[in-house]
Amino acid sequence: MESFNFYSPTYFDFGKGTESNAGQLVRQFGGSKVLLHYGGGSIKKNGAYDAVVASLNESKIPFVELGGVYPNPKSGLVYEGIETCRREGIDFILAVGGGSTIDSSKAIALGVPYDGDFWDFFGSGKIVEKALPIGTVLTIAAAGSEGSPNVVITNESNLMKWSAKGDVLRPKFSILNPEFTVTLPIYQTASGITDIFVHICERYFTNTENVEITDRFCEAVMLTLINESPKLLRDPRDYEARANIMWAGMTAHNNICGVGREQDWGSHALEHEISALYDCPHGAGLAVICPAWMEYVMEHNINRFAQFAVRVFGCSMNFENPKETAFEGIRRFRNFLVSIGMPQHLSEFGVKESEIPKIVEHFLAGNDNKTVGEFVKLGKEEAGNIYQSCL
Amino acid sequence: MESFNFYSPTYFDFGKGTESNAGQLVRQFGGSKVLLHYGGGSIKKNGAYDAVVASLNESKIPFVELGGVYPNPKSGLVYEGIETCRREGIDFILAVGGGSTIDSSKAIALGVPYDGDFWDFFGSGKIVEKALPIGTVLTIAAAGSEGSPNVVITNESNLMKWSAKGDVLRPKFSILNPEFTVTLPIYQTASGITDIFVHICERYFTNTENVEITDRFCEAVMLTLINESPKLLRDPRDYEARANIMWAGMTAHNNICGVGREQDWGSHALEHEISALYDCPHGAGLAVICPAWMEYVMEHNINRFAQFAVRVFGCSMNFENPKETAFEGIRRFRNFLVSIGMPQHLSEFGVKESEIPKIVEHFLAGNDNKTVGEFVKLGKEEAGNIYQSCL
Repeated sequence: MESFNFYSPTYFDFGKGTESNAGQLVRQFGGSKVLLHYGGGSIKKNGAYDAVVASLNESKIPFVELGGVYPNPKSGLVYEGIETCRREGIDFILAVGGGSTIDSSKAIALGVPYDGDFWDFFGSGKIVEKALPIGTVLTIAAAGSEGSPNVVITNESNLMKWSAKGDVLRPKFSILNPEFTVTLPIYQTASGITDIFVHICERYFTNTENVEITDRFCEAVMLTLINESPKLLRDPRDYEARANIMWAGMTAHNNICGVGREQDWGSHALEHEISALYDCPHGAGLAVICPAWMEYVMEHNINRFAQFAVRVFGCSMNFENPKETAFEGIRRFRNFLVSIGMPQHLSEFGVKESEIPKIVEHFLAGNDNKTVGEFVKLGKEEAGNIYQSCL
Repeated sequence: MESFNFYSPTYFDFGKGTESNAGQLVRQFGGSKVLLHYGGGSIKKNGAYDAVVASLNESKIPFVELGGVYPNPKSGLVYEGIETCRREGIDFILAVGGGSTIDSSKAIALGVPYDGDFWDFFGSGKIVEKALPIGTVLTIAAAGSEGSPNVVITNESNLMKWSAKGDVLRPKFSILNPEFTVTLPIYQTASGITDIFVHICERYFTNTENVEITDRFCEAVMLTLINESPKLLRDPRDYEARANIMWAGMTAHNNICGVGREQDWGSHALEHEISALYDCPHGAGLAVICPAWMEYVMEHNINRFAQFAVRVFGCSMNFENPKETAFEGIRRFRNFLVSIGMPQHLSEFGVKESEIPKIVEHFLAGNDNKTVGEFVKLGKEEAGNIYQSCL
């Protein structure tokens, strides 16, 4: 096991009606004037907006609204938010929505106290040390941004979809009411489930040995998704299944499942090019990329993939030929993704074979020696091969 | 799934050599003068004391020492610690040791700013809202107090072993270096493992349905203990096994495995009478009480015990007679405890059959209608039967 730090200080308020605590929690965590940040308006249909506004009013907390966050959140709105916060003297950002809204909020939060361009922190490895405090009211189970120190933004000037991080970006509080997720379309729900699953895969496939405790935590989340997802196909309004998936989404990305081990993140890096260039849902992109990645890197550690197959997908271990077991695990993972309605091919997002060199160039961003991933390092050639394999 | 709050803001610094960060972390979390609290002196043999003192000196943090905490920590030393803190103007308590030292520190921490008797919070359900900040350097994997809001103290005047809680009692930071645990005697190690296991059982056996995510997290911890413990019997110096067990111990009690569900805590309540009156290790007491409790309450939900048997102990499900499977799970749990050297009978602590009425009287503490446990409520009669069954 590797040495590690673990720090997840977010206060989670989980369950029905918890959105009415928003104002009180903003107050408790020191907010006196709020930027209320949200997306395209679904929160005005599902009741979240009204409840949060009522709660802020009740706590007598003034707020300025900034809507208009779209999936794969863009830099333009971040600049606007930074300016609004400075102009209005805002000291707390309240994100109401899914991962995109939360990430847009985090980017604004780190940009406000920073003299330079907020983008300096993205893709640079520079840790964010200062940011406005944020709180969230989560309405989609997917990104895990409600408990994570991470933020991903797409720069509109060059379509680079890059990330930044820092413990100060962890929300002070996150309100999770599974009821807000019951009205989500099944495709969006399934994209979220895939994102959660792959957040775990990025941690599970590691070169660090002897980390049974986080192996088992990872398996716990994956087994939960496999158990609960079919219930939503039968009844999308199943509160209990929604609740299990929503909390699984938080635990998949606050790093309780990732401590003590080297993590990979190759699939995410490869997928970000797809959702940046083709604007598909991130989770749907991962549904295509991640199994292809698995097949490409499987030989690196057959036994780890056999463990995945046996413990997560209930395969029988083929002791004479563990590779067969490893393959069967990946096959069942694909079947799971198909069963919840996820795509299997990049062509479903409009990607053409002839465009792969362009995608790879974009991936390299001017650095021909760039690699991503730790389990297996992937450079120009490997990235191209993986994209090619999932056309 | 029940609604819940989850708040675990402790900063964990895990791995070899992390004790040398103690001074810097005290400073970071606002301490300027420290009570250095510890036990019977083992930390002077294993290097923890020297490293922590050097770190405090390096950070130029003055400190006052208070040693002498023993297992099942007592109220007398708590009163002494409260007086010392007040007299010396101490603003931060640093616990170096196991759960007993941390709990003694928590009791002092809540007593310092409180005008009345610190004992007012114990057994009363009164939530602790104010306390000095504490940090810990953990040297034994067991109690989980390094990440929990709980504290258990034995009152010397009446031998009541009662608990208190409050989020302010969660340590600001906890330093976990598994190396400090490699020199522990195997009996003490096994008592710790049992305590960790039963912290999970108290959460796993619940009347709340459809909480797959925490079911799976609970199973993750139990499976880890079953996997790692035999390694320590072969080689007590196995760092990797120690590390997995140490982190499992934290996760078993910061409540990440317990959210969304009613919890039981009957076994703990019954055991506290034994360790209070016979001064046995708490974990060893649980090794006797918990399996007896399981057999006593099993009929309440055979399927839950069958799930425990199948998922945790790898039993085959007997679909014609699930009760057989449930029994087999408990039998394997007992075998596991015996395999790590735990006792099976109260008589091993010197308990005589004739003393059971006295133990039950002590358990009732003057309230003939007292019950403990939620999975099944246990009163006077049930407590007596369970004690009787494990003589």
